[in-house]
Amino acid sequence: MSVVYLDHVAGTPLHPKVFEAMVPYFREFYGNPSSIHDGGEKVRQAIDAARTKVARLIGSQEEEVYFTSCGTEANNLALKGIAWAQQTRGKEIIISSIEHFSIMHTANALERAGFQIVRLPVDQYGLMDPGAVEKAITSQTILVSIMHANPEVGTIEPIAEIGKIARAKNVLFHTDAVVSAGTIPVEVQELNVDLLSLAANQFYGPKGAGALFVRKGVRILPLLDGGIQERGLRAGTENVPAIVGMGVAADLAREELPQRMDYLRLLQKKLTAELPKRIPYLRFLGHPTQRLPGNVSVAVEFIEGEAMLLFMDMEGIQLSSGSACISRSLKVSHVMLAMGVDAATAQGSLLFSFGMQSKEEDIDRVLEVLPPVVERLRNMSPVYRKAMAKKTEALG
Amino acid sequence: MSVVYLDHVAGTPLHPKVFEAMVPYFREFYGNPSSIHDGGEKVRQAIDAARTKVARLIGSQEEEVYFTSCGTEANNLALKGIAWAQQTRGKEIIISSIEHFSIMHTANALERAGFQIVRLPVDQYGLMDPGAVEKAITSQTILVSIMHANPEVGTIEPIAEIGKIARAKNVLFHTDAVVSAGTIPVEVQELNVDLLSLAANQFYGPKGAGALFVRKGVRILPLLDGGIQERGLRAGTENVPAIVGMGVAADLAREELPQRMDYLRLLQKKLTAELPKRIPYLRFLGHPTQRLPGNVSVAVEFIEGEAMLLFMDMEGIQLSSGSACISRSLKVSHVMLAMGVDAATAQGSLLFSFGMQSKEEDIDRVLEVLPPVVERLRNMSPVYRKAMAKKTEALG
Repeated sequence: MSVVYLDHVAGTPLHPKVFEAMVPYFREFYGNPSSIHDGGEKVRQAIDAARTKVARLIGSQEEEVYFTSCGTEANNLALKGIAWAQQTRGKEIIISSIEHFSIMHTANALERAGFQIVRLPVDQYGLMDPGAVEKAITSQTILVSIMHANPEVGTIEPIAEIGKIARAKNVLFHTDAVVSAGTIPVEVQELNVDLLSLAANQFYGPKGAGALFVRKGVRILPLLDGGIQERGLRAGTENVPAIVGMGVAADLAREELPQRMDYLRLLQKKLTAELPKRIPYLRFLGHPTQRLPGNVSVAVEFIEGEAMLLFMDMEGIQLSSGSACISRSLKVSHVMLAMGVDAATAQGSLLFSFGMQSKEEDIDRVLEVLPPVVERLRNMSPVYRKAMAKKTEALG
Repeated sequence: MSVVYLDHVAGTPLHPKVFEAMVPYFREFYGNPSSIHDGGEKVRQAIDAARTKVARLIGSQEEEVYFTSCGTEANNLALKGIAWAQQTRGKEIIISSIEHFSIMHTANALERAGFQIVRLPVDQYGLMDPGAVEKAITSQTILVSIMHANPEVGTIEPIAEIGKIARAKNVLFHTDAVVSAGTIPVEVQELNVDLLSLAANQFYGPKGAGALFVRKGVRILPLLDGGIQERGLRAGTENVPAIVGMGVAADLAREELPQRMDYLRLLQKKLTAELPKRIPYLRFLGHPTQRLPGNVSVAVEFIEGEAMLLFMDMEGIQLSSGSACISRSLKVSHVMLAMGVDAATAQGSLLFSFGMQSKEEDIDRVLEVLPPVVERLRNMSPVYRKAMAKKTEALG
């Protein structure tokens, strides 16, 4: 049985060219970038070259890019690094109520350490109101952190506008661009951000490499203390092969971005058009137009999503019900709840996330396999049977 | 010109079997371990298998091993995680004065955050006195962190004895075993430690994977907040290929440990015997017997070490003057200073660290190339010329 992987939001497959570029750094160039001999120098240059590529992807200067081990580390570094460095100026941090766990739980940790966290609501589409950010900023606010795009429901936030407001109010602004960078245009100047997180394994790069953009002049403290790697902001021997891979993946993303977006939108459009024809009581989640290409998020009413995922998996179709980091926690998504989706409906959420290896046939497979799974599960559901009985009665 | 790599303390080459085991996790198994479908399950199992292997290397239980992105992160997690979790019990932490930067600078950061750091001295060989630890522990002490072996001078500390003392006093004990684990026997029960850091790239595993052993029941807080990876202690998508590689490297290290030690000692013995015959005014650093196999640390008096490294590098011999994390900072080593080596002599330190690819011929190369380099540099040194003139005069 061939596998249909529609869980790209949890991680993309590695691009063959990326892997190819990494191999010499496993086999030949094993030096430590901090060593001052030639073996160290070679890998140090490779890291700098990768830094240039990542900078080019996000339109920053090279020295504004700091490599981390993943997107979560970049997000932790952004929030904690700014909080600790700027706490004498104030202790208030503004986030949205639909942030990724790596922002949400970091904010919780800072709250326990004495910071005030303001969590702003979103509308039914998961969209932030920039005006709300403007109102929330006080003289104590040191940082606003709003995600660029939400992985679970695909909504793209008005980051440029929020950034303009933060700048006018002289407050630092961070965006978690982990699921957007490399997928849609992400340009730090246009977005008016001071800090931005990204991760290689969201754009066909390897696991083990992320980066944080920190605008020149912004005072931030390290999360990992030790050696003077990454100009003192991130100690620890650099993961050279992963960093090299991230650079190549960034170059490919930059070059292919328009084509990738077009292709993903094509798949998205097809699934979005066909799904409601085959499955009744289906609700699309997230914003209808301001959304990530290749991301289709739905709630299948009267169903427990976990069961759907398992049945689909048995048929070789790999999906998720939202963020991978949430999957195993078995909790109702805070994103759905923030959007006003009731807990029962949120339990029935399904997330299709396409990638460049996805094919139109994958959608045909979904359209063939999912409807009978849904029907079967619904027939087992007392809630559904009751609702249907009521309906028949009303029609009767 | 073939390169002679004698800087294994900065990182070992990847074992071909390790790389081989990693490749499928780049090519085929790209799933996210948190995904609940089969693609996630497969890589989750691979991580668990690696965890078992690392646990076996250090004699711990599987669930006591937490993967990190590197040794520096493991050290940061140990100190900060314990400090934040246990601060209500006390705010005193004891370390040695020869710790790696990732302990030393983490301790400094905690000191700025209000913790008291006690830095214990070492003797001329870099050896700790367990009795000093006993005396230093107070009712406010929450953690003792003493490195297992020092990378710069090779000295192995009496960890088991210190651990016994800490346990008797009911104080948590961490050891930074980054340069010892996989190189000499490291067994958490024998060493009486509650926490222990290790890194894959010190035993022919990949960059990008480290681990922290945390004894069951020890209260510790995460450094990276976010998803519930590593049972909530280390958020962030797991670097699956690197973790798989670390597992295989741990297995190889465990199986080959005695042979590896014998071989490295052979090389160490030869260089130690021959070097003083060719180079006058040479001083061995670190303990003469309680030391890492394959580690030869010397101070070449009347010479600036940096210049020696560069001349050796030009001849294809890759060495360091100590820890790679220190190299680029161009500071006099705090380890040497703590051992009472004067700053001038410390500047002339050279560190030869052998690995399993090293050959006896590598030593012949060193013995051929180094003496004329030393002579040349000494002849350029006014201090040396003055010392020699004095000596000739005295012989008169």
